[in-house]
Amino acid sequence: MITVYSELHKLHHGRGEWMAGQLVPVFEMPRRAEIILSRVQEVRLGEVIGPQEFGLDPILRVHSPNYVRFLQTAWAEWSKLGRTHDALPYAWPVRRMNQGLEPQQIDARLGFFSFDAASPITPGTWTAVASSANVALTAAEQVRGGSRAAFALCRPPGHHAAQDYMGGYCFLNNAAIAAQYLRDQGAERVAILDVDYHHGNGTQAIFYPRADVLVVNLHADPRVEYPYFLGHADERGEGAGEGYTLNYPMPWGTEFPAWMERLEHACRQIQAYGPEVLVVSLGVDTFRGDPISQFRLESPDYLRVGERIARLGRPTLFVMEGGYAVEEIGLNAVNVLQGFEDTA
Amino acid sequence: MITVYSELHKLHHGRGEWMAGQLVPVFEMPRRAEIILSRVQEVRLGEVIGPQEFGLDPILRVHSPNYVRFLQTAWAEWSKLGRTHDALPYAWPVRRMNQGLEPQQIDARLGFFSFDAASPITPGTWTAVASSANVALTAAEQVRGGSRAAFALCRPPGHHAAQDYMGGYCFLNNAAIAAQYLRDQGAERVAILDVDYHHGNGTQAIFYPRADVLVVNLHADPRVEYPYFLGHADERGEGAGEGYTLNYPMPWGTEFPAWMERLEHACRQIQAYGPEVLVVSLGVDTFRGDPISQFRLESPDYLRVGERIARLGRPTLFVMEGGYAVEEIGLNAVNVLQGFEDTA
Repeated sequence: MITVYSELHKLHHGRGEWMAGQLVPVFEMPRRAEIILSRVQEVRLGEVIGPQEFGLDPILRVHSPNYVRFLQTAWAEWSKLGRTHDALPYAWPVRRMNQGLEPQQIDARLGFFSFDAASPITPGTWTAVASSANVALTAAEQVRGGSRAAFALCRPPGHHAAQDYMGGYCFLNNAAIAAQYLRDQGAERVAILDVDYHHGNGTQAIFYPRADVLVVNLHADPRVEYPYFLGHADERGEGAGEGYTLNYPMPWGTEFPAWMERLEHACRQIQAYGPEVLVVSLGVDTFRGDPISQFRLESPDYLRVGERIARLGRPTLFVMEGGYAVEEIGLNAVNVLQGFEDTA
Repeated sequence: MITVYSELHKLHHGRGEWMAGQLVPVFEMPRRAEIILSRVQEVRLGEVIGPQEFGLDPILRVHSPNYVRFLQTAWAEWSKLGRTHDALPYAWPVRRMNQGLEPQQIDARLGFFSFDAASPITPGTWTAVASSANVALTAAEQVRGGSRAAFALCRPPGHHAAQDYMGGYCFLNNAAIAAQYLRDQGAERVAILDVDYHHGNGTQAIFYPRADVLVVNLHADPRVEYPYFLGHADERGEGAGEGYTLNYPMPWGTEFPAWMERLEHACRQIQAYGPEVLVVSLGVDTFRGDPISQFRLESPDYLRVGERIARLGRPTLFVMEGGYAVEEIGLNAVNVLQGFEDTA
C-alpha cells in the first residue's frame, strides 16, 4: 500500500491547548506523524510518496470560502496585534446569539470559526493543513487510479472540522475533502467509516443532508466525551440524507469485543449501501494507553480491524485522524493497514 | 440613596480568566466592590444595608431550573475529579451541533451553560452570585417601597448571563431578576437602561420576545468588541417584543459627547415608553482608563450621566455591572449616583 506523506505538517506545532481549565502542552504534536512514518518504513508497507498540489478548488467543495479565508489570514490578523503566542479563541456564538454574522475582530473570528479552544493556530498552520488536504487528495487519486488501498498520513487531522469551523485539532476535513473529490471524479456512492475514539462531528455535519456519502461513526458517547454536542445514536441524517448517517456511541471502558460487535454491524450497513469507494477515518485513540481516551483496544486488535475492513472488498482510502499514545501510534495505525493488506 | 451590599461577594474570587489565548489574572476581582463601597461611605451617599434573603423563586422567574442546578453543583462536580483550579469550559455547542441536549460530564456542562471561558467558577461562586441577586432584589424592594432610587452594589455582575448560560464574569442576571421581580410585584412596565461598555447580551436575550420590559443598550459595536455575537443595531426584539429592544452600538474610541448623544436618544425612547420603574445596569468600563475597553469617558462625565437619568423622573434602581479600572471605579460609579441625587 502506498503512503502519502508531507514534511510540511511540522510547520503546525502548537505550544498549548486549553483543556479542562488549564493551558496544557498539545497532545496533537508533529512526533505523531513521524512515528507513524517510521513504522510504515520499518514494516515495508510500501512506497512513501509526497503529495501533489490540488489548489483550493477541492477544499472549497467542502469548506466555505469565508472559513478558508479565515484560516489563511488568522495568524496574520493575530500577530498584527503584537501577539506571538498561539492563537486560540475564548468566546463563542451559542444559542440565542447571532450565529450567522461573521465578525471583524480576530478574537471574535476565532470564536465564530471554531467550537473549542484546543486547536491552536500558529504561523505555519495554513501551510500545514493545506498540505494535509493535498496528502488526502493524492492518496484518493491512488485509489481512483486502481490501487486497492492507499494511506494518507495526514497531519493535522480533519474529522472534527465542519464546513466553517475548526476544533479538536482539526482545521480542514481531509477525509471529507477526499470523499467529495472522489464523488466529483465520478464515484456514485462513497462511504466514510470513522473509527476514531472521538465522534467525527465535522464529517457528519458536512454530509448530514446527503445520501451520496454514507457517514458511519464508532465513538465514545458524546454525553460524557468530547466533542460532546454531536454523535448521539438518534442523529441519522436529515432530508434526503435521512438514514445515511449512522452513529454507534459507546460507553467509557469499552473493550475490543464490544467495539468489534459495533464494527461488524457498521460494516454490514456499509455492505448494504454498496459504496464504490470506502474512506476510513483512521484514529487509534481507541487504544488502552491513550492519554485522553477511555476505550481499551490493544495493539493486536488493530490487525483485526484492518482485516474486517478488507473483507468489505472496496477500494479503500485510509486517512489518518487521532491517536495520542505517541510511542504506540505507529504500531497501532500500521497494524490496521497490515491487517488490511494481509487479507485477500 | 440607600446602598445594598453583601460581604459574600468575596467568596467569588477567580484566579484566572481565559482571554485572547492566555490565562490571565481576573479583571473582575473583589477589590472592585470594596473600592465602590469605600467611595459610597466617603461621600456619604446614604445608608448601607445588607441584603434580605429572597430564595430561589425570583431567580427561577428568569433562569432555567437546570441552569440554576448547574451553578449550584458545578464546583462539586469539578472537584470530584480531583481538580482544584478554577472551573472553566473549553468546548461549546455552536451551529450545526445539538444545542438543546444537556450533557452529563462537567466539562461539557460548563460549555453547554456558557458562551466564553472568562468566567471562572470557584468553591464560593454559587454563594456569592445568589447573594448578589439578593442585593439587587433588596434594592428593588427599596424602590418599590417608595424610595426615589437605590443602589444595588452587586458583585459578581449579571448583564451577560442569559436564561441558561453564564459568560463575561456574569452568572445570574441581577438586573433582569430585579426587573422581573418588580413586574411580578405589580409594575406594568419596566425599562432597563444598560450603560456598561459591553452589550448586555443576557438581559437582551431574556426579554427579547416581551413588550413589558424595554431593554436599551449603549455599548461598543459587537462586530469588534466582546460579547461579539449580540448587540447589533438591527436587533430590535421579536414577536410581541418587536421594538422593545434598542441597541446603540458605538465604535472604539467613542468620546463623551458622541456617547451622550446616544444616551439622550435612548432617554427619549424610555420617556415615550413610560416605565413605572427604571433599572440601570451601571457599568463604568466606558471610562478612558479601563484596561479592557475602548471608550473615552472621563470621571466628571459620570455626573452628567446621573443627571440625565434623574431627569427621566422615574423610580430608579441602579445595579452595578462592569468597570475594571479598579482604583477609579468608586469615583466613576458613585459620580453617576451623585449626579442623580443632585438633580431634582
